[in-house]
Order: sequence, then C-alpha cells, then structure tokens
Amino acid sequence: MKHFSLKDINALEHLYKINLINSCSGFKSANLIGTKSKSRIENVAVFSSITHVGSNPPILGFFCRPTSVTRNTFDNIKETGVYTINHIHKNNFEEAHHTSAKYDADVSEFDKTKLVSEYKNNCFAPFVKDSPLQMEMKYVGQYKIKENNTILILGEIQELYINNKILKIDGYIDLAEAEVATINGLDGYAFPKLKKRLDYQRPK
Amino acid sequence: MKHFSLKDINALEHLYKINLINSCSGFKSANLIGTKSKSRIENVAVFSSITHVGSNPPILGFFCRPTSVTRNTFDNIKETGVYTINHIHKNNFEEAHHTSAKYDADVSEFDKTKLVSEYKNNCFAPFVKDSPLQMEMKYVGQYKIKENNTILILGEIQELYINNKILKIDGYIDLAEAEVATINGLDGYAFPKLKKRLDYQRPK
Repeated sequence: MKHFSLKDINALEHLYKINLINSCSGFKSANLIGTKSKSRIENVAVFSSITHVGSNPPILGFFCRPTSVTRNTFDNIKETGVYTINHIHKNNFEEAHHTSAKYDADVSEFDKTKLVSEYKNNCFAPFVKDSPLQMEMKYVGQYKIKENNTILILGEIQELYINNKILKIDGYIDLAEAEVATINGLDGYAFPKLKKRLDYQRPK
Repeated sequence: MKHFSLKDINALEHLYKINLINSCSGFKSANLIGTKSKSRIENVAVFSSITHVGSNPPILGFFCRPTSVTRNTFDNIKETGVYTINHIHKNNFEEAHHTSAKYDADVSEFDKTKLVSEYKNNCFAPFVKDSPLQMEMKYVGQYKIKENNTILILGEIQELYINNKILKIDGYIDLAEAEVATINGLDGYAFPKLKKRLDYQRPK
C-alpha cells in the first residue's frame, strides 16, 4: 500500500494534496444549495459536505468557508435564514458542477447554467427544478471550527419534496433508483447501484 | 411529488421517520472506526457521517451521540486520543453492518464478526485488515451540537494508507475502482460507478 505520513501530506503540491484529502473520507453527498439575497439575487452552488446530524428534530449540516466561492451562499443564509437543498441528478451534474466557478455576488448561477429555479409554498429561496428530492431548510445554528476557520451550518428541514417513485413503503428513499449522484473527491461524479438493504442488527 | 411538512415529519412513526430523514441528505460515506480502550479492549463500529472538513491541515469530522451504540467509540477516543478510519468494501459490508449491534464495552466487535484487526507503525488503535484505504487519526477537537445533543468529533490524519491501484497520478483516489461502499439511509449499501471527472470551473 502507498503510505503518506502527515509530514508527507503537508509537503505535497497543492492540487495533489486537495485531490487526495478530498477523496479520502469516502463518497460524498452531491447537492445544490439554493439561496436568494435580500436584494433578490438568486444563487445556487454545489456542496459535497451535507450530512445527516439527527432525525428528531430533522437536522442536516454542511461546512463552508466564508472566504471562498461559498461566501454568497453563507451571506444569503445569514441574511434571510432560509435555503434549499436539491439533489444532483444524472441529467444535470455537469451544469451543477459549473456552479463551483467563482461568480460575483450580483451574478445568478441560474443565468449561467441550464439549471432552472423553481418557487413553491412561499419559500423565499429558489429550488432547482426537476431535482428528485428538494428540501426547504431553516437556518438554526452555526459553529465556528477553530481548527481550520470553517463554519458548520445547521438547518432544520421545513418542507420535503420527493419523487413518488423513489419513496418506499417504510420511508426509505431509493437514491440509486432516483439516479442521484455521489461525489468522489473534488470533481468525480459517480452513480451508485444498490447492492442490498440489511436488517437491523442485534448482538449474536 | 410527495410532500412532507415539518409537522408531517414530526408526526411520523419512529422507524418511518428515521428511514426518511437518514435517506434525505444524499449518499453517505461508509467507514469503520477502530478504537481501543485504555484497558486494551478493541472496538470497531460503522459510521456514515465521516465528512471532509479541510485539507490544510487534513481534518475529517463525524457526528456521534454519546448515549447511543457509538458511545464506546466516543469514550475510547476521549481516553486515548487516537482512532482509525477504514473504508467499507464490497467484500465486508455485511460484517461491517453488524457492528451497529449494541454490544457492551467489554466485547470486541472483532470477536463477533469476520473483521480482522491489524496493527502498524505503533498506532495504538486497530485498523481493519484488507480495507483499501486506512487512516490513523489524532483527535483534535469536539463541538457539542446543542440543537440535538450530538457531538462533532474532529480528527487530523496522521498516516494514510491506500491501495496503490486506486491512487491516480494527480492524487485522486478512485473509490469506485476500489469497490468502496456508500450508504443510503440506515441500511442500504450501494456501490458507485464513476461517470466522469469534470474540469476545474471558471466563470463563462
């Protein structure tokens, strides 16, 4: 096996290092976060760190860096308290990836891609049309991660919309059947095939 | 589309709710965390919340609930400051899933499954043998998530071991080629196929 110590990692060339360290946590979620500024400029951006934090209340988290391309998303969430999470699909992953380009705050990524914004149920932030799973989120808290100056943003699910076909009788959402993407590293888009659902485990 | 409001979600039957909310963040990483208590009892447990937090320094995070089955992992990390992260593979995902059973702290899941512990480079915590990607982690911080009484644990990569075949020339690790699992919800194990790596994006 190839072996890297922390010292080796710290000495790596920048692009090699970010490819390596972004790949090594495993497969990541692939989502578009939709927001709108108070001055009504829409924003949509790809995120691969959206993580389940708890079901009761239903809370999801993600990490962002206020100094990077994700700054517009962060600013809009702090200004308005609302955002949407939309799963990336086989049909739009290339358009979705383009939202990682560094556009100024006065440019909407909806105008620069084929992604289409959609509004429903009085949600202030835009959804991404035709996403098989869309959520309206309410900002509920943030934690400054002092180890590397990132911020963990927590939101509570307010409204959840799911393509009927992929919602199973026990509440399971079949993301593979939905052709939802997963991200490998910074730029690899992969599509999973469900192998097996396993039973609840008890001690042998 | 099927629509659930927050009120609908809160009123759902428990199992339906946890299936639904655990599925809705997207595909999740599939890892085994290896630890050992001061009294030298090994522990290995499946986690689906391990997330990239930053590359410089190389930090990964995960969420745990100190009152649940993940308590042994949490206690051992706090006691010893060290743990391992090992990717779940097509050949061991059923054994890996069994580590979610609630065993007492004096029982090692290595004794209850076909998973085999492995030691290298003086790491106090056990690795999972034959995992295509193994990391030795140093605990660097924790954040109490007051919204639902979970804890975000942060660790810095100390040593990284990767199957040579899946490490590409630019530092990208091909997790699909490695047959690494991704988790859908609580119990769905899926295996992705890489569709495409996309270029670094600049404004059009």
